[in-house]
Amino acid sequence: MVADGGSGEDEFIGRFFRPIATDAAARGLLDDAAILTPPADCDLVLTKDAVVAGVHFFPDDPPASIARKVMRVNLSDLAAKGARPLGALLALALPRDVTGAWMEAFSAGLGADADFYSCPILGGDTVRTPGPLTLSITAFGAVPHGRFVPRTGARPNQAIIVSGTIGDAALGLQWRLDPARPGFTALDPAHVAHLADRYLHPQPRLALAGALRDHAAAGMDVSDGLVGDVAKMLSASGCGGRIFAGRVPLSLAARAAIAAEPALFATALTGGDDYEIAATLPLGEVEAFLAAARAVGIPCTVIGETRAQSGLDLLGPAGDPMVLEQLSFSHF
Amino acid sequence: MVADGGSGEDEFIGRFFRPIATDAAARGLLDDAAILTPPADCDLVLTKDAVVAGVHFFPDDPPASIARKVMRVNLSDLAAKGARPLGALLALALPRDVTGAWMEAFSAGLGADADFYSCPILGGDTVRTPGPLTLSITAFGAVPHGRFVPRTGARPNQAIIVSGTIGDAALGLQWRLDPARPGFTALDPAHVAHLADRYLHPQPRLALAGALRDHAAAGMDVSDGLVGDVAKMLSASGCGGRIFAGRVPLSLAARAAIAAEPALFATALTGGDDYEIAATLPLGEVEAFLAAARAVGIPCTVIGETRAQSGLDLLGPAGDPMVLEQLSFSHF
Repeated sequence: MVADGGSGEDEFIGRFFRPIATDAAARGLLDDAAILTPPADCDLVLTKDAVVAGVHFFPDDPPASIARKVMRVNLSDLAAKGARPLGALLALALPRDVTGAWMEAFSAGLGADADFYSCPILGGDTVRTPGPLTLSITAFGAVPHGRFVPRTGARPNQAIIVSGTIGDAALGLQWRLDPARPGFTALDPAHVAHLADRYLHPQPRLALAGALRDHAAAGMDVSDGLVGDVAKMLSASGCGGRIFAGRVPLSLAARAAIAAEPALFATALTGGDDYEIAATLPLGEVEAFLAAARAVGIPCTVIGETRAQSGLDLLGPAGDPMVLEQLSFSHF
Repeated sequence: MVADGGSGEDEFIGRFFRPIATDAAARGLLDDAAILTPPADCDLVLTKDAVVAGVHFFPDDPPASIARKVMRVNLSDLAAKGARPLGALLALALPRDVTGAWMEAFSAGLGADADFYSCPILGGDTVRTPGPLTLSITAFGAVPHGRFVPRTGARPNQAIIVSGTIGDAALGLQWRLDPARPGFTALDPAHVAHLADRYLHPQPRLALAGALRDHAAAGMDVSDGLVGDVAKMLSASGCGGRIFAGRVPLSLAARAAIAAEPALFATALTGGDDYEIAATLPLGEVEAFLAAARAVGIPCTVIGETRAQSGLDLLGPAGDPMVLEQLSFSHF
């Protein structure tokens, strides 16, 4: 008689992933695939993001934070489309030197976010790699049929809005890279902690999904830098616009850093990892949208307006055009 | 005025992926996510497999073959669950030394399979890695509501069947690793080519999906080796069984290699990468299933039977128990 086919991979999955994959659709991670009955009268929203150690995160970031970040990056895409999460699949390519303690913390972080955001882990694949830790998450969401919020829906004479505050994560990254910069040495420790946390732990704006569906013409998540991403959205929509830099919402921590080192303003406007929502709204929808956003606890700010002529102008506090060295951050 | 937000990644996607992502749900790869209306009265089947250069494929494999293999590995999971493909997302982590010609061939292979298997590329993510080329595909399929074929459905006194032929890919891999082995030096070049092709180009048995839904109690795809995978399916179902090694279907090429080097029989029975379907059938369904499989051009073979007692016996041609060093192949 031969054994029951158990392998090292099966044991690994049983130890680290089965305990967090408790949704029925995951089938205990014992099947070839997950099985999910889609909600009636909904469209599916499908997104997939990959990250690599040393490229998209620091190899010594806390494992729970790495798990949460890749999860939330995907959830942010769902939020921008007006969707609610249905579930996620994880692919994990692991170097040999990853320890059991690292995996336990990673799995705990992933499971906590899956619970918090009602986005159950439904399956995936774990493989070995001689290279850096590499992972991808595929997230599935649902939006009422025909109601998803496209990136291509902006039209002239709409308001451009953004959620939350911009630039915190980019400043948190710069602090990680060079804490001795003048913008950071003078900061209150609580401000440093705020920026560092915003880099490590994006806040997917899923609570805004309903307001976006009800009021927005176009939406996207701001992942590669505000100015470049808004430029992308308007270009995809076939229009242009302008952003008033002085209206871009900044946290107290970001304001303090920029006051100490004004060059960090450009970093805030063009750095990546905000995972806030940018959207355009017909002018008649602005008040209702802002009220709905306040009602779910996510303040949003009008930062500019669209126009027929292509291109995006960035106007400084005095109304003068600002020139930036680069519009957005790219690892590519 | 600032530019339109175009980045190196956007240009890359435009050059290599937009031409093959022509399905409306992909939205020209210009949005944050893909949007898909699920078919009525269907369940979704979700699967994700990852592969790493130097671990799961040879770095110098033809790029079109690498693309096709990771696509087909996922489609094989859909087939085993009785599903038809709806679409796929790709995550690609690329080393810097990948050339445009390599990418063109990769994209062409992926696009050809997306067309051939009616599984459109709907989106994904491309990132840079300092490590080996790493990719994952997430495939989505549909199965009529409540009709998916579970791995856990085997019951005592059912027939165990397998599709196609077993061991070709494992022998093709061994030939790649050591073509001077006695099992290979005597082979006809056409037989060598057959084995090598079966390793490079799995044949997902999507045409069997309907017959599996109509007749099978349990199903899975054979990816890690026949004996270990059937043992897994029976264990997950809470039963056991036996396989008659002499009934396992072998290609002429595999027969010739085993005749020249009998130790390769164990390789065929336990090696990976078959991507055939193993299933269990109530005895009353066997004839109808085999006829339906013949009708779609995929011969299937009864290789054993299930029983209440746990464990899987492998019986040699003379009815004697065969002992194997390992049941299945694992990269893990």
